Parts: sequence; structure tokens; C-alpha cells
Amino acid sequence: MRQMKLGLFLAPAGHHMAAWRHPDAYPDGFSLKTYKRFAQIAERGLFDMLFVADVFSLTPKGKRSDNFRFEPLTLLSALAMVTERIGLVATATTSFNEPYHVARKFASLDHISGGRAGWNIVTSSSPREALNFGYEAHFDHAERYRRADEFTQVVRGLWDCLDDDAVMIDKESGLFFNSEKLRLLNHDGAYFKVAGPLSLPRCPQGNPVLVQAGSSEDGKSLAAKYAEVIFTIQRDLAAAQIFYDDIKTRVASFGRDPDHALVLPGVMPIVGQTRQQAQDRYETLQSLIHREAGLATLGRHLGMDLSDIDIEGPLPEIDLAKLTQSRAIGIVETSRREKMSVRETWEKLVVSKGHRQLIGTAVEIADSFQEWFECGGADGFNIMPPMLPNGLEDFVDLVVPELQRRGLFRKAYAGTMLRDHLGLPRPGLPAP
Amino acid sequence: MRQMKLGLFLAPAGHHMAAWRHPDAYPDGFSLKTYKRFAQIAERGLFDMLFVADVFSLTPKGKRSDNFRFEPLTLLSALAMVTERIGLVATATTSFNEPYHVARKFASLDHISGGRAGWNIVTSSSPREALNFGYEAHFDHAERYRRADEFTQVVRGLWDCLDDDAVMIDKESGLFFNSEKLRLLNHDGAYFKVAGPLSLPRCPQGNPVLVQAGSSEDGKSLAAKYAEVIFTIQRDLAAAQIFYDDIKTRVASFGRDPDHALVLPGVMPIVGQTRQQAQDRYETLQSLIHREAGLATLGRHLGMDLSDIDIEGPLPEIDLAKLTQSRAIGIVETSRREKMSVRETWEKLVVSKGHRQLIGTAVEIADSFQEWFECGGADGFNIMPPMLPNGLEDFVDLVVPELQRRGLFRKAYAGTMLRDHLGLPRPGLPAP
Repeated sequence: MRQMKLGLFLAPAGHHMAAWRHPDAYPDGFSLKTYKRFAQIAERGLFDMLFVADVFSLTPKGKRSDNFRFEPLTLLSALAMVTERIGLVATATTSFNEPYHVARKFASLDHISGGRAGWNIVTSSSPREALNFGYEAHFDHAERYRRADEFTQVVRGLWDCLDDDAVMIDKESGLFFNSEKLRLLNHDGAYFKVAGPLSLPRCPQGNPVLVQAGSSEDGKSLAAKYAEVIFTIQRDLAAAQIFYDDIKTRVASFGRDPDHALVLPGVMPIVGQTRQQAQDRYETLQSLIHREAGLATLGRHLGMDLSDIDIEGPLPEIDLAKLTQSRAIGIVETSRREKMSVRETWEKLVVSKGHRQLIGTAVEIADSFQEWFECGGADGFNIMPPMLPNGLEDFVDLVVPELQRRGLFRKAYAGTMLRDHLGLPRPGLPAP
Repeated sequence: MRQMKLGLFLAPAGHHMAAWRHPDAYPDGFSLKTYKRFAQIAERGLFDMLFVADVFSLTPKGKRSDNFRFEPLTLLSALAMVTERIGLVATATTSFNEPYHVARKFASLDHISGGRAGWNIVTSSSPREALNFGYEAHFDHAERYRRADEFTQVVRGLWDCLDDDAVMIDKESGLFFNSEKLRLLNHDGAYFKVAGPLSLPRCPQGNPVLVQAGSSEDGKSLAAKYAEVIFTIQRDLAAAQIFYDDIKTRVASFGRDPDHALVLPGVMPIVGQTRQQAQDRYETLQSLIHREAGLATLGRHLGMDLSDIDIEGPLPEIDLAKLTQSRAIGIVETSRREKMSVRETWEKLVVSKGHRQLIGTAVEIADSFQEWFECGGADGFNIMPPMLPNGLEDFVDLVVPELQRRGLFRKAYAGTMLRDHLGLPRPGLPAP
């Protein structure tokens, strides 16, 4: 029976914008201990994977948000040592990186973790990032995606330079590896020129799992071509179904099996023993939003400075054609359609990074998950607890058992690798 | 009383060229388990630090050597979780990297490990590396070092963008960080343009420890300007004393305290309960050297293809002026001076990567260490066990107690950070 897949989107305090101000947040300050605890709770809940986002910059104005973070690969490598089964998915941009470094780091993580690595391919959106890499501004949207496509090909090519049995460690004959099972990549393209090979045996998973979250036309195309897991922002089932059908059709058009591209919308579940308790938890967090944090976060999502705006009035005029991020477009469209003030816009749409919020009991949340899962809206969910660790513990202790009772979620890990959890095939080698 | 510092130069099988062919090598195959075991033995031996070298390429002809490796930062981040005190020094090149990535990864490792990170600054020497990053050939030697100098400045600048107390996590007022304690870097130089800041609090150590190993004129100058630990290849005491004096003088000329630039020559100690046992161990390893591995490794050190050479004859004509690496020059000079054949050259000079070999009992090895340490040749040693784990266990169980008995080495870690072990001050912030 088909079962749903669950990711835990890791954040130091939780995904509600004001979570860090909650008395239970940051019990150990800015510390790995916090992440270690979350990872272990998620593994107790049999999650398929941990997911870490990434931004290569800090907004100096964001002083009322907690946008500090560990570098994702060093973080997940450390967490690999304190977990046994859960997948480890890190974000790495194709815009300010070299494919050789990215291929090698993820291959290294896959070896270190015994086959649990995944790469979330992004092209970067924060305009500040470019300033840390010698550019005045980011590449334009189409160029980002052309570069991402070639980058992904190079990374996969590097992962496949050695056959699975190329490394022999044959002490008797003195052959460490069989050079007949090694092919140079010798890629020479528009953006990259890379000889290869990596100095690592082929990965336990063959290739780490490829993840993507673009929702623009270019983004969906990249996802359909390569991604095995697709994260997406979907606030209602009808839109989610359209996205799901569209992606699966595109995946098939690349000659790929649609079942090997799993669609996981993000969701912020606020769980209570009763609906009232859930609502109270939500209201507590909402009351902690600082005006400046709301403005700065909304401004960051829209790519504009809103500091002097009347927060009780509507959003300013924004040319939708200039917004390339689907999240930003969604925020502006919804805010206009529902005639929200600036303050309402951040309170309702930005508080959970644009993702769906689900407030209720475990049964209510499981009902909604089941509906989306069975009605062609999702293959699972990327869970964004409003706050950590409580919001995650509530989910693991209340919602997971409810999903298991319904046969919708595993009762034990069946394998040891991320591909095992996700039901994804191990990639073969390209034909010679 | 001044005590010596010890690094463990990590390698999957050991530092003898043929170590991997020994029956005890690679007990777990190519696996993190192996490294975990070595790290824990070194920590039991109270070593100051683990050190990981790096090369961004694999020589397809090196099929009889074990030059496969984990990516250093993911490796050390994993090892941070299975050790408590030992320092974690990784190599990262300034040639095919971006300073923002390097600064962030080492800062992340410093946070993850509670202040145990160190960065070994290299400019890369393998010509194959350039081919993985879009270049036909490596930058010339002088340019590499100009770039390395600016790169190091940018990395230090990024580490110092935030005051130690900039991150407040003040839930009451809603201030996550104090923006008055944050300075943008806004570096704009010949090679790099980087705005900053990093999205991490300042490191536990202020800055990770800076390590360098260049021995060319440019290399020594870079080391003297920045390095707090200096690795070096020294085969006899007289030369080591000259190097030691030279470096300390250069350090002082930059206005730095010479005691804060520790000189650690590499050494491959082959320890036995008796001298005969040590000698037998050495002969066993020597007998495992495959002709092709010897030729390929010697060729790699000299940057030339030697596959068709008569191994019983002398080295071919080599223009010393064309060799930029001091290790390569040393090999050619010694081989000529001592009239070695090609085979003898790899057997005697390349087998331990050009480093000194010390074959004997614990007392004999401690005698030599003491002489170098007390006669101005070294502040400690970078230990390169001929094979692992045995060679390391022998060192920890036999040599370390002998050094402790003489008061030359610690009997317990005094602090928790790498700077504590090394007696290095915590860097302050630059004057505003």
C-alpha cells in the first residue's frame, strides 16, 4: 500500500516567524545541541528525512529575526553521527558554487551517513548573496536555470565516473582501484569545464537523492527533469492538485516514472489535544510577532524595503511581472484578493514562509493529510513545526500514530538508505 | 614549562606509501569507522589536533595508491561528534574556492565542535586540480600566493564582522542580534569583492586557528604573516634549526609574537619494543611497495610522468628552477647528492611523503623529539604513523608516556578549545 513520505524542515526555533521569542525556544542558545535534539525526535517519528534550507547572507536589517544558521553540509555531517536512519537533505545553490565541490561534499556525506544524503538544488533568490561572491547583482532568472541545468548534469556525471565496484582495495595484487572501471567526465559546456573524477568511491546510494523546489516555469521544468523529491508551497487542495498533475505530466514527458518524483507540499501543523488548545498555541505565537520583524520578513519575501510603509494600509503597487519567485507572486495576489493590510499580510501569509497552516487536533490534521494524499494533491508533506521542540514532539506523539493507525505511514524503517525510505530506485550507470 | 604540541596527520591506512597493503589496514574498507577509531585513539593520546590534507583530484594512473578521501569539512564535522577535546584542522585551498564559503564552513565547524577548528591554508599544487574548475593549468606560483594573501584577509574579516556579544536572543525586547555590533566587511580587492557578514555568531575561538605549510619564499612569508601553526618537512636537525629561526624572525618582523607561530615538522615514527622490531616493521612495509605505485607517487611529487624510466638508473635531468614546490626540490637534490637510483629515491624519500622517518624504540624516538624540541628545531611534531591503527596505538601507548615522564607533554587536556591546547591567544576584534 502506498504510504506518505514526511520531511522535517529543520529550523533552530521553528517555522513560525516569532517562534524564537517563545519561552521554550533556544534552550541551549545558538547550539548544535538544539539540532541534535530535533533530529533525534524526528527519527523517533520515523520521518523520511531532515531538510535544511540555506541562504548565503545575512540581512543586517533582520535584527529581529533569527536568520543565523550553520553551514548545511557541516551540520548534516554532524547529525549523521547522532542518528541512524533518517535522510539528510541539504540545500546547495548552483549559482555561487562549483559543481566539483558540490558533487564531492554530497558524495562525502552519503558515505559518512551510510547512504542518507540528498541535495536540494536551488538557484538562490536573496539579492544580497551575490554581493558575497564578487557580483553586483544576481544572474537573471533564465540564466540561473540554464546554469542550474548544466551544473546538475556535471554533478551527476561526477557521481558516475566510477563504477560501483571500481574501488577494490586488493592488497594481494596491489591494485587499489580498477582503472578500467573509471571514466573521466571531461565535461565542456557553456558554464563549466570539469575533468573529474571525484576521489571517492561511488556513493552508497549510487547518487544522493535529488530534491528541487522551483515553482516558476523554469523551476518546474528543472524539477521534472531531475528531481526525485519536489517541495512546493500549496495553500489549498485544488491548486495542489493542479500542480501535482502538471509536475507528474512533465516528469513523464522526460521519460521518467512519475512515481519517482515525489511531491511534498510544505505545511505548518499546529497540533493540540483539542482544537481550542491548538488555536491558543497559534495565538500565543502570533502575539509574539514584532512589527519590525514582520515588515523585514515580508520585505525580504517580496525583495523590497518596506520600512516606511503604513502597516494598516494595503501593500504598495508592485509590478507582478518583476517578481520571479512564485512565493512572492502568491503573497501579493492573495493579499490583494483578500484585501489584506500590510500587517495582515505578514500575519497570515508570511508567518509560515508562505506555506499552509493547519490548526487542529491530530485527527483533524490527519484528515487533511489523508485527503490531500488520496485525492492527488501530495505524496507526503514537508513538515514545518511552528516551534521546536514542542511542535515537533506534538506531531510525533499525536499525528504520526494517527497516520500509522490509518495505514498511511510506516511503523518502522524498512531500509537504511534514504532511497529505501522514499521507494526510489538506485540510479544505474550511464551506458558507455 | 614549555611542552611540545602534537598533531596527528590523518590518513586512511597510514603514511607509508604501501601501508594500505598491510594485512591490518582498512579493517572496515573505505569507511568513516576507520577515521573514527583513529580520532579516538589520538584523543586518548592527548594529541593537540587531527590534521586532514586535501587534494581536489584523483590521478587516474594512481591505481596502486589509496588516494581516495572524504571531503575534509564533512569528515571533521562528523569526527567532532565522536570526540570531545581534540582539535580539528582541515585543509582548504585558496585557489579554487570562494572566501565566503571557506570562512563559513570553518566557522560552522568551530561552532559545531565547541571551538576546535583550524584551517590549513594551501594554494594547491596538483596540476590536475585546475582541470576540475574550468582552467587548463594552475595559476603561476606568485599569483597563487597573492591570491592566498587576499583570501586569508577576507576570511579573517568575515570571521570578525560580528562582536562576540552581537547575538543576544533577547526574547523580551524581540532583538535577536544587536546591529550596532555588526560591521559589514565590504572588501573590494584585486581578487575578491565580498560584502559580508556571515550568518553565524562569532566563533567560540574568535577565529579558527590558522595553519600553513608553505616552504617556498612566498610560502614562508604567508606563514609568517598569518599562521599560528606551521607544518614543515625537515629531515635533519641543522636544517630544521635554520628554518625555525628564519620563520620566527619573519613572524616577529610582522609585529607578531614568535611564540604564537608554532613550528611542527612532520615525522613518521616507526616504533618497536626493540629497535629490531621497529626495523622489521619498516622492512615489512617497504616490501609491500609496488613498482608502479612508487613510480606514480614519485612522479606526482615531481609533477612529471616517469612511467617509462629505468628504475635502476638515476633520476632524469630536471630543471630545478621549474620546480616550485620545496618538497620536490628537496627530493631531487637529495637523490642527486646521495647518488640514488629512481627506485631508491622513492624507497627512501617518497615513501613518507618526503618527511623524516624515525625508526626505533620509544626511548630513542623521545630522545630525538626532545633534542629537536630543546635545541630550537621544533615546537612539536606532526605525527605521521606509518600505518594505522597499529602505528598510532604504538605511539600513544609507548612514546606518549615516555614524553610525559620527561615532562615534555601534557598529562591531561587543560582546556576545551584548540587554542587552549596550543597556548594561542583568542584574537580580539580589529580596532573600529
